[in-house]
Amino acid sequence: MKITVLGAGAWGTALARLLCTPENAVTLWGHTPQHLDDVRRSGTNQRYLPDVSLPKDLRLEGDFAGAVQNAECLVVAVPSKGFREVTTGLAGYTGIIVSVTKGIEHNTGLTMCGILSETAPQATHAALSGPTFASEVAREIPTAIVTASRDLPTAAQVQTLFNRTFFRVYTSADLLGVELGGALKNVIAIAAGIGDGLGLGENAKAALVTRAIVEIRRLGVACGAQIDTFTGLSGLGDLMVTCFSRQSRNRGFGERVGRGEKARQVADSMVAVAEGYPNARSAYHLARKHNIVSPLIDETYAMLYEDKDVRQTVRDLMSRDPKPEQ
Amino acid sequence: MKITVLGAGAWGTALARLLCTPENAVTLWGHTPQHLDDVRRSGTNQRYLPDVSLPKDLRLEGDFAGAVQNAECLVVAVPSKGFREVTTGLAGYTGIIVSVTKGIEHNTGLTMCGILSETAPQATHAALSGPTFASEVAREIPTAIVTASRDLPTAAQVQTLFNRTFFRVYTSADLLGVELGGALKNVIAIAAGIGDGLGLGENAKAALVTRAIVEIRRLGVACGAQIDTFTGLSGLGDLMVTCFSRQSRNRGFGERVGRGEKARQVADSMVAVAEGYPNARSAYHLARKHNIVSPLIDETYAMLYEDKDVRQTVRDLMSRDPKPEQ
Repeated sequence: MKITVLGAGAWGTALARLLCTPENAVTLWGHTPQHLDDVRRSGTNQRYLPDVSLPKDLRLEGDFAGAVQNAECLVVAVPSKGFREVTTGLAGYTGIIVSVTKGIEHNTGLTMCGILSETAPQATHAALSGPTFASEVAREIPTAIVTASRDLPTAAQVQTLFNRTFFRVYTSADLLGVELGGALKNVIAIAAGIGDGLGLGENAKAALVTRAIVEIRRLGVACGAQIDTFTGLSGLGDLMVTCFSRQSRNRGFGERVGRGEKARQVADSMVAVAEGYPNARSAYHLARKHNIVSPLIDETYAMLYEDKDVRQTVRDLMSRDPKPEQ
Repeated sequence: MKITVLGAGAWGTALARLLCTPENAVTLWGHTPQHLDDVRRSGTNQRYLPDVSLPKDLRLEGDFAGAVQNAECLVVAVPSKGFREVTTGLAGYTGIIVSVTKGIEHNTGLTMCGILSETAPQATHAALSGPTFASEVAREIPTAIVTASRDLPTAAQVQTLFNRTFFRVYTSADLLGVELGGALKNVIAIAAGIGDGLGLGENAKAALVTRAIVEIRRLGVACGAQIDTFTGLSGLGDLMVTCFSRQSRNRGFGERVGRGEKARQVADSMVAVAEGYPNARSAYHLARKHNIVSPLIDETYAMLYEDKDVRQTVRDLMSRDPKPEQ
């Protein structure tokens, strides 16, 4: 199959590498010519996925139209902020588009496949999401993930395309639930990181994640997703690893905020995007729109966008009346 | 209130410390006179909870009858293996007994409060369980936990007794679910540790924990527990922290097995008990009794008790046909 991956960050590169088999012709598109030249010259994506050599038959392409033309399947791996702009070029595309981007558009409250239904309405849409550090997938360390599509045969097709002995792909029909889980977990990961920056321990982090999944589920169900999806790989699975891992960008972002840096400054200083920062704002407004009780999202929003004191936030959360758990 | 904590390990000591307020008279019972003498002399429990100074008014008692006499509330914090033997001395006790021990008795399939219903039938029973490293609670780092009793006023009473600004106590009426979550998570933590010992990554661990909670829930519901309890603090919350934390004894136990040591030898070499080891056997037999599909418990049992090769286990788990996620 002819496949093009749009976005030459860590995840796009790791997936392009995985897709390079004798059956597939894979193209990786990136928007920075200098970066593509570096990758071409070195045979590695040193900036985003260091020390992983890329297959010789992976084609690198800087021209968007050239990359997309003739592709039977597109994998979109660009930051959520640029997702609409990039996919606006796919208006006439009729193949399969797999979004691997996690986010909620702020103005519209749409997930990435929600955007695709506007920008590429003639294509078939799927998402691929789960607890998957790119560096581990690139090193072929066992990983499980879920692909979702409103159309189950499409999910099965994406499953076949990506499934490997080291990469176990489950399917789901709850596209919205899979996407919302992926977007909202990054917000909570920032909160977890703030706790780390403050010197809180693992007991507190476990409590945060446990209460967060209840909140994410409540919001997701109000948006129309299915409740069980949030305790799956793309919900809980991704949430916990993002909150507990030292590798997580979003957790690391929060850690710096917890140590006293301003969120805006942390965002400006990072090489790769921490999706939780823009998505905290999207999640907060989505919760207001659906009139959901969401103390953890609200407090994270307040710390990131209203300069709420992080220690005061912990005091506020701990001093609520403890209730029956369920 | 007059309270006695039975068991001078890390958790018993941390809770005895927490309970020492002007309103309470707290006694800590331990079964090793030499150990109690050391604690008395140094003012710390250097063996199990190092570098935490204990309140001067905490009474240390080596005589069981003397410790129990006049106590209005007993907190049982002994290893699950000794739980029946210790509580057999409480046949006539009529106060509140709070179990903080996590385990399933092998011969009977009973949880600790299940044992209490046989050994101390005149007492009121509750469990206190959640993601709570003793060292963090002893340092008063924010923590959340759940107390469960079949009798909700008892749960509320235990909540009042233990709740602190740094220690948030939720309540639950699902005693069995809270206890099973606490016991079964240690089995999975050993599996997670084996993955660490093998050099697997965080993607695999997140997948393991996510699939494990489905399995634990399935088994728990078959035993009569409520489904939502397993996504709470005592289920998921405790499971994830035990699997991801470097502090976890059970995870550490598994890590050594993953590196090639025999389970029996690892168990014999440890100062504190790794409850997941005996409980892997209890869980395996409980799953058979209820005819539950439990691949993760089964594989953990096989690695620990039948010397199944750990690499073969990973291959077996990864090569199953991936299915729809829910």
